[in-house]
Amino acid sequence: MSTVESVRWSADGGAVDIIDQRLLPGTLLRRELRSADDVCEAILTLAVRGAPAIGVAGAMGLVVALAPHAEEDRERFLACAEELGERIARVRPTAVNLSWAIGRLRRVARETEGNARAVLGAMRREATRILDEDREMCRRIGEHGVGLLSDGARVLTHCNAGALATAGIGTALAPVYVAAERGRRVAVFADETRPLMQGSRLTAWELAQAGIDVTVLADSMAASLMREGKVDLVMVGADRIAANGDVANKIGTYPLALAAHHHGVPFYVAAPWSTFDPATATGHQIVIEHRAADELARGFASPVSPRDVAVYNPAFDVTPAALVTAFVTDRGVLRPPYRFDEAGHAGESAG
Amino acid sequence: MSTVESVRWSADGGAVDIIDQRLLPGTLLRRELRSADDVCEAILTLAVRGAPAIGVAGAMGLVVALAPHAEEDRERFLACAEELGERIARVRPTAVNLSWAIGRLRRVARETEGNARAVLGAMRREATRILDEDREMCRRIGEHGVGLLSDGARVLTHCNAGALATAGIGTALAPVYVAAERGRRVAVFADETRPLMQGSRLTAWELAQAGIDVTVLADSMAASLMREGKVDLVMVGADRIAANGDVANKIGTYPLALAAHHHGVPFYVAAPWSTFDPATATGHQIVIEHRAADELARGFASPVSPRDVAVYNPAFDVTPAALVTAFVTDRGVLRPPYRFDEAGHAGESAG
Repeated sequence: MSTVESVRWSADGGAVDIIDQRLLPGTLLRRELRSADDVCEAILTLAVRGAPAIGVAGAMGLVVALAPHAEEDRERFLACAEELGERIARVRPTAVNLSWAIGRLRRVARETEGNARAVLGAMRREATRILDEDREMCRRIGEHGVGLLSDGARVLTHCNAGALATAGIGTALAPVYVAAERGRRVAVFADETRPLMQGSRLTAWELAQAGIDVTVLADSMAASLMREGKVDLVMVGADRIAANGDVANKIGTYPLALAAHHHGVPFYVAAPWSTFDPATATGHQIVIEHRAADELARGFASPVSPRDVAVYNPAFDVTPAALVTAFVTDRGVLRPPYRFDEAGHAGESAG
Repeated sequence: MSTVESVRWSADGGAVDIIDQRLLPGTLLRRELRSADDVCEAILTLAVRGAPAIGVAGAMGLVVALAPHAEEDRERFLACAEELGERIARVRPTAVNLSWAIGRLRRVARETEGNARAVLGAMRREATRILDEDREMCRRIGEHGVGLLSDGARVLTHCNAGALATAGIGTALAPVYVAAERGRRVAVFADETRPLMQGSRLTAWELAQAGIDVTVLADSMAASLMREGKVDLVMVGADRIAANGDVANKIGTYPLALAAHHHGVPFYVAAPWSTFDPATATGHQIVIEHRAADELARGFASPVSPRDVAVYNPAFDVTPAALVTAFVTDRGVLRPPYRFDEAGHAGESAG
């Protein structure tokens, strides 16, 4: 079993080698990003998507973009690094991972002594560290979470929190990949995830690539599947987790949690520790992004709703902590009562 | 306010005049069905859809198809009526309303004395009776249900159980239309209803035509809308209602009921009395039709899931009676404990 690598260095080290996710599932095209323009365009158009993957690609992209400036004098190079870093980070201003990763490279640039070449070398090592840390984070979530998946487990997931969303084996899908590595039979049900279909387009594709049994269903069909006793557990990712355990994630996560609760199906949220936001007390404080009407109304070959009809199109929803069975994190599996202090009590580990 | 008429006699009485629902919401095209071929093709291709509308169109279509045979001798005409009736009924064999309506015309044909012209006249009157009864049934559901909608009511619905699905003002949408007629402000949220989008394509269109405030949302967004306190009640139709009150309806109805229950939002099922099936004890005995994978996987301009990936695509789900607040029927509003005896105790009326 091998998982796809959505972000990596090119063979010559001079480019960021990505899978262009816009063409999936029809076409697997790898692209080499060799300039700031390439990197910004790839992030803007969602050729690269998924918070961790965007952070990694942005940091690596900044190194690539700075390569032509390696012979300039130190001060000029540092000014360039600030300017290009700022430009890349601005492409998706709400993507916390992107500005965080770019920020790490800027700090390294400022703190490294020597000429431009030396600074660029340090920045490249830091970008590689961010890449490696992301892979390691995914791996740890997988190792911690694999204990929740017995042989023959049937896992329902939503959206794409897999290899395509990270530089490693994903978050929600990491336990699935680790279980498969260990020879356990796992079957995954992938909600198609309206409106942008990340489940049917991306999750189904990457699992099929890895030889894992996957079935696509419309989001509204998950409750029936549970009622038929065909789901052993739900495993989803998270965009933000409030201090009380409320989970903001792709729209459609909340009704899944309601259905799981009603049917006694465990509902697990897999996320890196960095997703827990101690500054947000509860989900009620999380502002939900609403997106363009056309995503719903014009998604098909021909229009699927009348022109100018109103559309309710939130991108995310909030699942109350009470509906979460456990959090699967890189620091372990956390069950209630939760302690999300930054110091980092790891909770109980089922891995 | 005026509702669309999905099925009616043409001005000259020689054709069934329908709205071609395949072209909605982009184009409003009325077609005149003037032969058995026309009628069968319209029903087969879902130009006409919705159980009541299919029954009405089938019966009227049989009359139209028999017109060229009005000068034949009685026995030959009756044989023709049997043959064409059988042919129309076979187009959608699981549509109970279709074979029921055709059956009524066959019986009238057999029981009417006189020549072919006399028999055909009796059949036309019976077809018109079926049309009128359907309109009357819708109207009564609307009158009974309107008491559930106060001024300013925000109603969430799923799929299309409106004027387009019947010859009248619909079932689930009938109380909405009657409330609007009486000058009450009503806002409707229409689930898009994957995979075939009857909500965004049809419900949104017919409500917009009638000047009623309508907002389209993806099915997975309804729970969030309820959590935000923006839904006063859910009103859906039904394909079959078991003796214990379990409701088979379009896939995605069940998670709506779960979410409504969780949020204390009333969940109403509007249906004609003929939908109650005393021969089916509970929803567990209802066999759910699964439909083609392509409906999910190929619905968009480009494929939205990988080729050959498995698809779970049930067309309906079952909502347990315990999640239903009341049934809105042509015989009244029924609240628990339910008595669905065929003799027809009408239950309490809130209308």
